[in-house]
Amino acid sequence: MLSITPVKFENDKLMILDQTLLPGRERYLELASGEDVWYAIKKLKVRGAPAIGVVAAYGLYIVCRRLKPKEYDDFIDQIKRTSEYLSSSRPTAVNLSWALNRMEKKIRSCESELRYLSGSEMMARADEIMFAEAEAIRTEDEEACRAMGEYGLSLLKPGMGILTHCNAGALATAKYGTCLAPIHLGQEKGYDFKVFADETRPLLQGARLTAWELSKAGVDVTLICDNMASIVMKNGWIDAVLVGCDRMAANGDGANKIGTSAVAILAKEYGIPFYMYVPSSTIDLNTPTGADIPIELRDGAEISNMWYEKPMAPAGVKTYNPSFDVTDAKYITAVITEKGIVYPPYTENLAKLFS
Amino acid sequence: MLSITPVKFENDKLMILDQTLLPGRERYLELASGEDVWYAIKKLKVRGAPAIGVVAAYGLYIVCRRLKPKEYDDFIDQIKRTSEYLSSSRPTAVNLSWALNRMEKKIRSCESELRYLSGSEMMARADEIMFAEAEAIRTEDEEACRAMGEYGLSLLKPGMGILTHCNAGALATAKYGTCLAPIHLGQEKGYDFKVFADETRPLLQGARLTAWELSKAGVDVTLICDNMASIVMKNGWIDAVLVGCDRMAANGDGANKIGTSAVAILAKEYGIPFYMYVPSSTIDLNTPTGADIPIELRDGAEISNMWYEKPMAPAGVKTYNPSFDVTDAKYITAVITEKGIVYPPYTENLAKLFS
Repeated sequence: MLSITPVKFENDKLMILDQTLLPGRERYLELASGEDVWYAIKKLKVRGAPAIGVVAAYGLYIVCRRLKPKEYDDFIDQIKRTSEYLSSSRPTAVNLSWALNRMEKKIRSCESELRYLSGSEMMARADEIMFAEAEAIRTEDEEACRAMGEYGLSLLKPGMGILTHCNAGALATAKYGTCLAPIHLGQEKGYDFKVFADETRPLLQGARLTAWELSKAGVDVTLICDNMASIVMKNGWIDAVLVGCDRMAANGDGANKIGTSAVAILAKEYGIPFYMYVPSSTIDLNTPTGADIPIELRDGAEISNMWYEKPMAPAGVKTYNPSFDVTDAKYITAVITEKGIVYPPYTENLAKLFS
Repeated sequence: MLSITPVKFENDKLMILDQTLLPGRERYLELASGEDVWYAIKKLKVRGAPAIGVVAAYGLYIVCRRLKPKEYDDFIDQIKRTSEYLSSSRPTAVNLSWALNRMEKKIRSCESELRYLSGSEMMARADEIMFAEAEAIRTEDEEACRAMGEYGLSLLKPGMGILTHCNAGALATAKYGTCLAPIHLGQEKGYDFKVFADETRPLLQGARLTAWELSKAGVDVTLICDNMASIVMKNGWIDAVLVGCDRMAANGDGANKIGTSAVAILAKEYGIPFYMYVPSSTIDLNTPTGADIPIELRDGAEISNMWYEKPMAPAGVKTYNPSFDVTDAKYITAVITEKGIVYPPYTENLAKLFS
């Protein structure tokens, strides 16, 4: 049974698995205040868009339940301020503001019920509403991941060799993950997958997180360097490639962690199916093609200095450090969403998913 | 002008650039004894098959010039023992024993001249012969690299973007390198190449050595992670891929540093020529295909622990760490040797090279 939960609410406490300590130490950290939540998100102690959304929702709840507003408008005002504060921890994370907005909207939708209660009665009821909404956000994400896992599993067979890149796993979501969901579900069903995890330079999410998460779940996982994907495919060890997605354009081009497009091209060359796991919220029909997706460039020190004990590149060396690349739709065998599996032609079939 | 010389003999001293200190420190080390030479090779202070051959030849010379043998047979016996000792530093390095054998053979070929000289006269003459032979080994390697560079340069145009993987550079040879030779020669001629160097995990030869060597030579070089080769090709920045080779089979399949086959497949997909630089001594007509080339597996700790300040992978994680992979002949646009450029069909045309 999968025991990895990056965010949990137990014994009335909000707890997160501190991912900056992985894989060396597995420690849950209590977030007892708004400042704790802000700092945990800022410092990547919790990461992955869905997981950040879940922790923000619970975070708003734990702050607001301690408020002592005089009346409804005062309460709404304090929620708004707390929400803005929490949202500032990682301003570009879409799920963060999405989850906070959803919590605020829920409370506003209960105005007629809350406005005419006394201060303490209002807060008792508001607490119930907010906690239920945070739980709903967590549960819905878990269900979406489980659905992706079930759809994905229908494409796989027991004993298969699977290659994955980066970490689109349980650690990034409420549970199961996106592209690792079928592996976790398969593990529960005794599928005995043989998984190869690309280490995923420069930030090593594959080594630090995926290898840890899968080992922890009892999955047979082998860590390789990114440049070994070709030889493991050539050796005949890989039957399917599973990856996540950060943003998919209307034509099926998908941006994901840097290096994903190389894995897709290798898979095509070796005749191996390449599956991209894409929650429907990640499909952006307003972006026509992959060429319209902006690619974040990060600090070159991540390549030249990070992790190392001594200089591993000449001082001042020029670097190029894109965080993502775009995998052309033509290399993607199928897109797995929580609403079902989408096959080419993507322009037509992705649009149908929303109609 | 290219100023990088991994091995030099100056002011009567054998000096090597200590490559284990690169890129942090650039320090020449005098090798004054047989033990110094043995240790420098063993500890990879000098690396790259041709460079090791050159240092071994000079090494035998500096040891033997101090010998005081009574007569010719005694002298030959001492050369033989020294040669065996030096050869034990890296028993699998082909160029090491090749260079030592060549030195010994040269001395033996002068038996009629040396045998009847007195001890000190014999040694004076033997010193001259050995020094000249060591110089010849160095010069011939430099000429072979220069020839590969000239042939290679004929395939390139000024201003081109070039991707390379690992280090088949001046640091690995007497001068110029194999696949970096056209870049160094182009630099002397004002070609203004824009070079992208794969960092080359796990041992980071691209970051530590290629980026250093090219920066040092004034070449415009950008360091990338191995998994970024696809995006730089897609961006239209790469006009040719240049790589070295550790062993080429009779059919043109070439084993080189792990990850080379992935770069070759990407180059084919993006329509970019892929050139493999192969000294003729590296072509093994007795090996029918790449499937017959044994692939060295190295310690997984190179992936999971090396270089890092804290654990970057779960303790005890399973790894797969092949040192080389085989690039199928079908992905190789041309093979550049010191004898000329070879095009497909390789089985036929590589054989012709030796006839």
